[in-house]
Amino acid sequence: MTTTHAHPLDTLDTPAAIVDVARMQHNIARMQDRMNGLGVSLRPHVKTSKCTPVALAQLAAGAHGVTVSTLKEAEQFFAAGITDILYAVGMAEHRLPAALALRRRGCDLKIITDNAGSARAIADFGRAHDEVFEVWIEIDTDGHRSGIKPEEAALLAVGAALHEGGMRLGGVMTHAGSSYDLDTPEALAAMAEQERAGCVRAAERLRAAGLPCPVVSVGSTPTALSAAQLQGVTEVRAGVYVFFDLVMHNIGVCRVDELALSVLATVIGHQADKGWVIVDAGWMAMSRDRGTQKQKQDFGYGQVCTADGAPLAGYTLIGANQEHGIMAGGPAGEDVTTRFPVGMRLRILPNHACATGAQFPQYHALEADGGLQAWERAHGW
Amino acid sequence: MTTTHAHPLDTLDTPAAIVDVARMQHNIARMQDRMNGLGVSLRPHVKTSKCTPVALAQLAAGAHGVTVSTLKEAEQFFAAGITDILYAVGMAEHRLPAALALRRRGCDLKIITDNAGSARAIADFGRAHDEVFEVWIEIDTDGHRSGIKPEEAALLAVGAALHEGGMRLGGVMTHAGSSYDLDTPEALAAMAEQERAGCVRAAERLRAAGLPCPVVSVGSTPTALSAAQLQGVTEVRAGVYVFFDLVMHNIGVCRVDELALSVLATVIGHQADKGWVIVDAGWMAMSRDRGTQKQKQDFGYGQVCTADGAPLAGYTLIGANQEHGIMAGGPAGEDVTTRFPVGMRLRILPNHACATGAQFPQYHALEADGGLQAWERAHGW
Repeated sequence: MTTTHAHPLDTLDTPAAIVDVARMQHNIARMQDRMNGLGVSLRPHVKTSKCTPVALAQLAAGAHGVTVSTLKEAEQFFAAGITDILYAVGMAEHRLPAALALRRRGCDLKIITDNAGSARAIADFGRAHDEVFEVWIEIDTDGHRSGIKPEEAALLAVGAALHEGGMRLGGVMTHAGSSYDLDTPEALAAMAEQERAGCVRAAERLRAAGLPCPVVSVGSTPTALSAAQLQGVTEVRAGVYVFFDLVMHNIGVCRVDELALSVLATVIGHQADKGWVIVDAGWMAMSRDRGTQKQKQDFGYGQVCTADGAPLAGYTLIGANQEHGIMAGGPAGEDVTTRFPVGMRLRILPNHACATGAQFPQYHALEADGGLQAWERAHGW
Repeated sequence: MTTTHAHPLDTLDTPAAIVDVARMQHNIARMQDRMNGLGVSLRPHVKTSKCTPVALAQLAAGAHGVTVSTLKEAEQFFAAGITDILYAVGMAEHRLPAALALRRRGCDLKIITDNAGSARAIADFGRAHDEVFEVWIEIDTDGHRSGIKPEEAALLAVGAALHEGGMRLGGVMTHAGSSYDLDTPEALAAMAEQERAGCVRAAERLRAAGLPCPVVSVGSTPTALSAAQLQGVTEVRAGVYVFFDLVMHNIGVCRVDELALSVLATVIGHQADKGWVIVDAGWMAMSRDRGTQKQKQDFGYGQVCTADGAPLAGYTLIGANQEHGIMAGGPAGEDVTTRFPVGMRLRILPNHACATGAQFPQYHALEADGGLQAWERAHGW
């Protein structure tokens, strides 16, 4: 005799973004313990979740301050009582009034720049409004995006423009985003060392020129989990570790059973002759992120799991339209209409937690005891 | 002497989603004229915009009813006074109460199915609630996703389950989504004919079995713009034509100067040695859609234009992080710091209008006279 127990997720419409709270807390503790061991502060990048309960859990575990990718996030987290906020995208002049307004309301907002033009604009605006902005200089330690290279002359020019312009030169920061292209412990440890050494070198050059540089901030989830030592670094920033995802799994810094974010979906049809199961999670739910495409294992638009979260070997979303996902990859000859009947619920692990989360107005936080809570998240700018 | 005029878009923060209203109205008129000429109704798929003013403009131009991809969209457009709504994703049983509630409030909602299990579930639920749902059968005319093939036995079984189950069998519908993989007029016209012929054949089989089938609904933007004739078809559904995008341009159904959606961005830095310009539109703004990657011209994450919308030859977003876009591709040796100084505004045409629009809570509608209006759009489910 079989007794049927209702699953807590059965109450939700689909698609829905599910956060496994026990896994999230495990991930938070894992990163915080590692940072404690390395003797550095942790300033989580909350662009991954854009969600107040998640950020508060990170702070409760020992993090100091947060990193944001937009001023809208800064507003959101400041409204939740978080005051120590780094806005980690190069400051655009037209956003200075919004940054000033946040500081005037008591937010200890730090901003960044990597060029003399913006540094002068910040200093001019600050002096015109009697505000001493705290500014960090963005350093390029891996050539993947923005920043000043540690040995460039521009570093001292930008530092001087800020310091002599009356702003608080708070430190240097870098992000070795090219760590996402690696997948061996040796290469990751080498990249972590390159990130550390480059940022420390930039700080040393500023100090040698008589400029202040109290903070040396580095980080990405892969390098944070791979650094052997962080001498000279004062804080680490990392974001996606809070949920992890299939890209991080391919990089080698987490197990699949540490992935805390998944998308709940419903089977809505089949193409039995092809072994296809059609689910109601398409790219609008999963995002268009195909980050595992060029990695060692391509998960399509995601790894399919049971409603309880157990991965179904071989089954991925091989295709996605806006509201349709095509799931396939099981054993040859399997009758998918029987194994995955219409109406069945499944969970899909995403390639990239930051991108998938952004498709949803809220997460549904699933506690170990089956309790469910709706956690709102920010959308837009 | 030069006189500087303030640009209307200067008032906006970036990134922002801009709709060129004149181009949108041109695109709406172009498709409506074509459908009028072919003697069929047009039922736009409003999943592209998820925006009431856009849908109302389509209806004002002559469209009959709308197509939606979620019941949330159905709620939104019904609240705006639109009653004739097709929900074009296979009906999941757990959504029947929401569909019933819409119908009870006066919404003429049509639903679809492609399997006998769902058809029976719809009929059972309808009879249990004294509701005659209008149901259309989804037909698979190109093998790309869902639907019953025109010659399959299941077609008559599903039709009978609905009709004998007391539901209103309203018709058949298909979507030849594989038209997105084509890029010659001949191949597109052939796919349009395949889509038409398959759907008409399904209707004929139902009618020959004594089942009603008043509606024969086909469509995708590429096939709608490529069909030579639509004999036996009663209506066409198409969505992305309202804005068009770079994917549609590569397919060959629009010119670049017909693209009505763009993302306004600000230059925030450079890597001068590489010819890179860093802008504040990353993948969070553009979406992760790389739909042009496998087409005849790869536009990266988008084609860069001036703030006035004139394409900058060669310049695309070659890379994107969450809030950073990397723009490159100009003439060798060009000094990008001079041509595109920090603070300059640019507009970026997206690969896929449906995906890019979904990243924004609102569009900014730019009229030909420079007037700007905020148009809200739906997010989530």
